[in-house]
Amino acid sequence: MDKILDALRAIVGDAHVLTGGDLSAWELDWRKRARGKALAVVRPADTAQVAAVVSACAAAGVPMVPQGGNTGLVGGSTPDASGRQVVLSLQRMNAVRAIDSANLTMTVEAGCILQTLQETAEKAGLLFPLSLAAEGSCTIGGNLGSNAGGTQVVRYGNTRDLCLGLEVVTAQGEVWEGLSGLRKDNTGYDLRDLFIGSEGTLGIITAATMKLYPMPAAQLTAWAAVPSMEDAVTLLGLAHRHLGAGLTGFEVMGRFALSLVAKHFKQQRVPLYEDTAFCVLLENSDHESESHAREQFERLLETAMEDGCVTDAVVAENLQQAHQLWHVRESIPLAQAEEGLNIKHDISVPVSLIPEFVRVTDQLLAKAIPGVRLVNFGHLGDGNLHYNVQAPAEGDAAAFLREQEENVNALVYDSVQAFGGSISAEHGVGSLKLDKLEKHKSPVALSLMRAIKRGLDPENLMNPGRVLRI
Amino acid sequence: MDKILDALRAIVGDAHVLTGGDLSAWELDWRKRARGKALAVVRPADTAQVAAVVSACAAAGVPMVPQGGNTGLVGGSTPDASGRQVVLSLQRMNAVRAIDSANLTMTVEAGCILQTLQETAEKAGLLFPLSLAAEGSCTIGGNLGSNAGGTQVVRYGNTRDLCLGLEVVTAQGEVWEGLSGLRKDNTGYDLRDLFIGSEGTLGIITAATMKLYPMPAAQLTAWAAVPSMEDAVTLLGLAHRHLGAGLTGFEVMGRFALSLVAKHFKQQRVPLYEDTAFCVLLENSDHESESHAREQFERLLETAMEDGCVTDAVVAENLQQAHQLWHVRESIPLAQAEEGLNIKHDISVPVSLIPEFVRVTDQLLAKAIPGVRLVNFGHLGDGNLHYNVQAPAEGDAAAFLREQEENVNALVYDSVQAFGGSISAEHGVGSLKLDKLEKHKSPVALSLMRAIKRGLDPENLMNPGRVLRI
Repeated sequence: MDKILDALRAIVGDAHVLTGGDLSAWELDWRKRARGKALAVVRPADTAQVAAVVSACAAAGVPMVPQGGNTGLVGGSTPDASGRQVVLSLQRMNAVRAIDSANLTMTVEAGCILQTLQETAEKAGLLFPLSLAAEGSCTIGGNLGSNAGGTQVVRYGNTRDLCLGLEVVTAQGEVWEGLSGLRKDNTGYDLRDLFIGSEGTLGIITAATMKLYPMPAAQLTAWAAVPSMEDAVTLLGLAHRHLGAGLTGFEVMGRFALSLVAKHFKQQRVPLYEDTAFCVLLENSDHESESHAREQFERLLETAMEDGCVTDAVVAENLQQAHQLWHVRESIPLAQAEEGLNIKHDISVPVSLIPEFVRVTDQLLAKAIPGVRLVNFGHLGDGNLHYNVQAPAEGDAAAFLREQEENVNALVYDSVQAFGGSISAEHGVGSLKLDKLEKHKSPVALSLMRAIKRGLDPENLMNPGRVLRI
Repeated sequence: MDKILDALRAIVGDAHVLTGGDLSAWELDWRKRARGKALAVVRPADTAQVAAVVSACAAAGVPMVPQGGNTGLVGGSTPDASGRQVVLSLQRMNAVRAIDSANLTMTVEAGCILQTLQETAEKAGLLFPLSLAAEGSCTIGGNLGSNAGGTQVVRYGNTRDLCLGLEVVTAQGEVWEGLSGLRKDNTGYDLRDLFIGSEGTLGIITAATMKLYPMPAAQLTAWAAVPSMEDAVTLLGLAHRHLGAGLTGFEVMGRFALSLVAKHFKQQRVPLYEDTAFCVLLENSDHESESHAREQFERLLETAMEDGCVTDAVVAENLQQAHQLWHVRESIPLAQAEEGLNIKHDISVPVSLIPEFVRVTDQLLAKAIPGVRLVNFGHLGDGNLHYNVQAPAEGDAAAFLREQEENVNALVYDSVQAFGGSISAEHGVGSLKLDKLEKHKSPVALSLMRAIKRGLDPENLMNPGRVLRI
């Protein structure tokens, strides 16, 4: 083991091979569910160093765990407990290599913080639309590795859809120079999309060329009370028709989820939730003007109220009010934590089936666990719900989690599968959902995935034990 | 050989195993450059039959060439001359399986004609935006296999971007049931995008779930004279800012290309081309109203004329005029054929580098081949040019093609590579560009592609000799 450590020190310098002291920042996962033990944390400065580190590890048979901001939610970026895995942190590779306004692209290194991308684009008068809760600390490499989603997917797609090209260090320590500012390139297999979302199990993304968009002239936020999930889906259809590509956000929130925000964050004003089953947060991005955006929004909400799918609504008067509305939405996970232990899900089903899925699954859970409370919210525009299960108000929440987690997961995931859905919409598989994937993914898909993994990483040294077992 | 033919007849019925008569429709490629000889043309009726055909061929070691409308431009869907390959035609599998308006998706079989998808969507009040010259005869399976582009990519992306899920028969004759109406699904490797654009070399796409969009309230077309390619790029930037996602088409056409339409199709009126280096065709799709679309367009063109990047412009007054303008653009390839033999390219470079690429490559060609004439047009919004080379006006065009094609291709493709571009933007590789790919694609990319091909199709029976040599 000393030999590989010496080799790594020779590549990145002594100061960037960490083996002692508190390594929690790299060894403990974001949700604090798993603490691993690394052989070392290695922090290369550039692509050549990453390639050399991979080559050295490959030669020594040492497994590697690539890591960005370590904000993943499925235990995909922390080492296991063996003390044999090297954490390969990309954090020092955080340069914006180039911005090309005429081509609407930006080339960045994997360790760039998401917020840096947003700010760099904004300075050039452009928009980088990926936006999610961890944007102040997650890295674009991690976003790509996990194909992160977020709040603007309804218009701009997932991270995958925002990427034109990649630079990747392969499991053999070679560099695939696939950076590209091209919107069309049909010269062979789509390696880019294969690496995106592979959670570091096929190679290490070191840089990427990302798409930029014109900055909208105005962005308005509205908040609507809807009587049912069916009504929320109806409102979504109306919003697509009225706003077209202007619809950049569509979040649904259940009454209980909102009541937790009102209960635990008393300084926040939570509008309209008390007399309705669900509220919807809508965002309208307009390339013309704020007054045009407002007109469009008002016409949509009038139509929706005539239709009956909306019973009451407010449009934020200014940016501060808009931020407050979004802040309510973003506070749900925190309020849920304040309320106590809970079981989280990140699922998707076709938008058209969401109402039926929720009705059926709610009933199954209520029957299985009397008093269970559902914190239901999410990106309805993408068919993606964070369908979370809070322990009953009375009783021992820790015992509930211990005794019921497997049971609840099985019930929810079986229901998701019955509705043609996904058990991981935007968070990935990591180590957390490894067993679940074996159960819910088709054997043919798993066998195709294994053939690819064996072809690209025959020694199984790239983030082993994540995504799929070999 | 009789044994495998008997097996195929047993699966699909005698009437659907064609071995005699004129099989040109399946054996001759669209550009009439290559005539192959099939062992048989097999026309399965459903996915189970496709799987059985693949299993039978795999067991007998018989190579398969999947085929849709046989409109590909790179010789990817016709058999070689060996008489050993089975053409597996998907044309009988042409059902629209489902349309889900609330989810904005449509599930179709691979043999559906592209125009059928457009019309089916329209009947539901929705838009399926893929649009290209062969839409009346190409199939969605072929569009997916080749990741077809077309005229609306600037807004809606390539075929890849319009697909949510696939059903695929693997090289082992298994069915991957990956049809999905999900906009978010992070459960493992992106098999969908791996099969899309793989030109039938990894498996056979039998059905797909495609995205639909709200039908715009109005679609307007404008035609602008621009003094230079730099000005065309400036106009594109202005159009992005002014129209946002309303910009659904941006085509550039050189003066010589337009002069050929005027010369060979005298009944067509070609506007504004005589006194300018380039014309641009713009399309604005508006979800609000025609009058709003017109206002937006006029504001854009005013700004562009003040800036100087546009010297003159017309906005189509009605649908008929809009069709006439598009018809001029679509007539360029035909006018080019009328003019005589020519060498076609389908290349892309970053939009920002297009002016410099064109200047440099024009000069190189003019120097190498005195009198050479450039038919330059294409999807500038995507950085994709059909940079075609017409024989000099004087002399023997056939001799020119014979003597200069390799030379011209080498010069153009070397220049494309120097500008970080792609030698096949939207047509694919097929057999036509197999050698070119070996030369211009990075060895690391080729080696990753080979590892995938060997993993998924170890016997090399799926469309062998296309995309890459094993």
